[in-house]
Amino acid sequence: MYSYRMPPFHQPTPAEEISARVRRFQAALDRKSLDAGLIVFPTDLFYFSGTMQSAHLLVPARGEPLLMARRDLSRVRAETSLADVVPLPGFRALPELVAARLGGGPRSLGLELDVLPVARFERYRELWPRTRFLDVSPDILAQRAVKSEYELGLMRRAGDLAHRVYGRIPGLMKEGQTEIELAGLITSVAYAGGHQNFLRTRAFDRVTHSWHVIGGESGGILSYIEAPFGGYGLSPAFPVGASQKVLRSGEAVLVDFGVCLGGYQVDLTRMFALGRPPERLLEAYQALGRIEAALLARLRPGATGDELYGLAVTTAGDLGFADAFLGPPGHQVRFVGHGVGLEIDEPPVLAAGLREPLEAGMTVALELKMVFPGLGAAGLENTVLVGPGGPEILTPAEDGFIMV
Amino acid sequence: MYSYRMPPFHQPTPAEEISARVRRFQAALDRKSLDAGLIVFPTDLFYFSGTMQSAHLLVPARGEPLLMARRDLSRVRAETSLADVVPLPGFRALPELVAARLGGGPRSLGLELDVLPVARFERYRELWPRTRFLDVSPDILAQRAVKSEYELGLMRRAGDLAHRVYGRIPGLMKEGQTEIELAGLITSVAYAGGHQNFLRTRAFDRVTHSWHVIGGESGGILSYIEAPFGGYGLSPAFPVGASQKVLRSGEAVLVDFGVCLGGYQVDLTRMFALGRPPERLLEAYQALGRIEAALLARLRPGATGDELYGLAVTTAGDLGFADAFLGPPGHQVRFVGHGVGLEIDEPPVLAAGLREPLEAGMTVALELKMVFPGLGAAGLENTVLVGPGGPEILTPAEDGFIMV
Repeated sequence: MYSYRMPPFHQPTPAEEISARVRRFQAALDRKSLDAGLIVFPTDLFYFSGTMQSAHLLVPARGEPLLMARRDLSRVRAETSLADVVPLPGFRALPELVAARLGGGPRSLGLELDVLPVARFERYRELWPRTRFLDVSPDILAQRAVKSEYELGLMRRAGDLAHRVYGRIPGLMKEGQTEIELAGLITSVAYAGGHQNFLRTRAFDRVTHSWHVIGGESGGILSYIEAPFGGYGLSPAFPVGASQKVLRSGEAVLVDFGVCLGGYQVDLTRMFALGRPPERLLEAYQALGRIEAALLARLRPGATGDELYGLAVTTAGDLGFADAFLGPPGHQVRFVGHGVGLEIDEPPVLAAGLREPLEAGMTVALELKMVFPGLGAAGLENTVLVGPGGPEILTPAEDGFIMV
Repeated sequence: MYSYRMPPFHQPTPAEEISARVRRFQAALDRKSLDAGLIVFPTDLFYFSGTMQSAHLLVPARGEPLLMARRDLSRVRAETSLADVVPLPGFRALPELVAARLGGGPRSLGLELDVLPVARFERYRELWPRTRFLDVSPDILAQRAVKSEYELGLMRRAGDLAHRVYGRIPGLMKEGQTEIELAGLITSVAYAGGHQNFLRTRAFDRVTHSWHVIGGESGGILSYIEAPFGGYGLSPAFPVGASQKVLRSGEAVLVDFGVCLGGYQVDLTRMFALGRPPERLLEAYQALGRIEAALLARLRPGATGDELYGLAVTTAGDLGFADAFLGPPGHQVRFVGHGVGLEIDEPPVLAAGLREPLEAGMTVALELKMVFPGLGAAGLENTVLVGPGGPEILTPAEDGFIMV
């Protein structure tokens, strides 16, 4: 008889962490007058249950959650601290299980409508033809934006691994290597430390990965991602990040390699070069350090994305980099940071026009980049905790422009 | 003025390839009496246009397609052979651009409803309140299942890279390594050859990656994927594939490392061991070879998934492996293969009950696995072309049980 036992190298999410998250979500359901939320997206499922095994998690506005699992119940039970785990033989079994838990209904149900495909939603509508459906992703994301001490501990560990990985980069670089070769070597070092190479995102049409190793002119190349640059990528079918471009002495090499441990990510960017890179990129990198310092001095609860974006742009202009900051002229993005956690790109966004105040416990990547078409890119990025008393950098890797 | 030039290490998709694909899709639109299809999902967008840059591709049932791109038009134009590329400043501009191309309307529009999130669909419904929407993903996938000579050429190249990568594995293995360390080393070799580590899938709730390096007991561990086994994975937040389990002498190590070049993937599995693995796994691997031979003898146009699945199960039973084939007892999956191409898991599926006949030009991974809880897994997998005259193996890597 098959039965799963958690291996010693896995850690479960603490029970009190899960129950605090569930209670907070229940308060949001209550405010929206929803009978329940039905969670199926992996990151949210993991956040509220501790498992990513295929399941439907019913969170009633009041009472205990019900985890309905599709495949191996023994693994689900080993990973979750939720008490009620039942098998879900198929979608048709959902209405009865849900009605039994809610005592009827549901009249209204919260779903993750930002990620749920139409075809799947139609199946739920057939199962519950009289139910009102509402998108609860904004509530889940707002809640996830503020990290607990437990979550911050995991992010600090990811930051420490990133520190070790970045420390190895100078020893891995060699003239004549391609960007993707160097990316592969960095990746293997990160794997050995337990890094999960798959950064998660809610976008249905965009994949997110670690290996942004961008040398010389590649730093001036745009792609589909909403970022100051994207690089060539491996082919038109994977058009972002490291490519077969050969790294040459005197080129700047930007490494934007997000690291993920236990589901939690940190995002960071550092600069390297074989020999001495172009003077303009060294100056740009120095300017980015000053822009970051200005942002850190203002990064506290109550600050807004709009204000921080404005401060960064003004500082870049004062330093003589208005044209290069955040992209080439005509293609500059209008944000200087994004939240990071279970997903690599989550609220809050530090962008023009966003006036929602930051809260203590939020974690943001300050994504500071400059682009010089034909020459390359300079980037400095750290993941930072918005602490009650001030910012804490979660990615303590060396931040000099490292010349090998 | 920023302008993209395709680097020498990228290849565009030939114009005649794109136009043949578009014409075939137009015939499907016509059969369904749809005015047009509106394509946004990256793999489909790449298939019909040659670019994965963020765009909406309008394919009218008659006439020329219109590619509406969101960001850098110069890159889109360098990558696509489609003649009509226009900027799309925002969603609100869609109705006018679409109506101009179609000469009014649309009365009906095909969308990729299996992947399109509800929230995005709602925006389209607001833009076109009187339009009838239909799911065209089944048509796209049916068309993509049959590969052109050009596509087969790319898959053969991916198969050759896989051959080289697997040839390096014996030299990378070392006792005391973790599964994920070995996976990292294999990954870095594959990267150097241009492998794209991100295998694509249409599932909104499942990520697919290459690094299934599964040693000893890990081969008996189930996870959320619909597969005979899943392994421990790195954590409950990444619960599939390689883990921190240490590889020991006398254990079987299964490597299921899909390789992707230029967007096209091949899927393959081979067995390795440090020292001599358990006798039962050697016998199982031999049996898998015989099951594969039986399948290859029947894999031709007109064969059905149901028939091939039945043949595999019967053969496994005759060889004394009924209990281990396709999973541990009570958890056995009911398929022996899946299509492979731009996505790692696409039609056709070789599964119980599927009676659609195979066509010449289809490419399938014959995914043959046996599971022995506590002991490990044995796997043999090749990607095979259903040729008009017989099967062609696209993954020619050595297929002995390699003991290091």
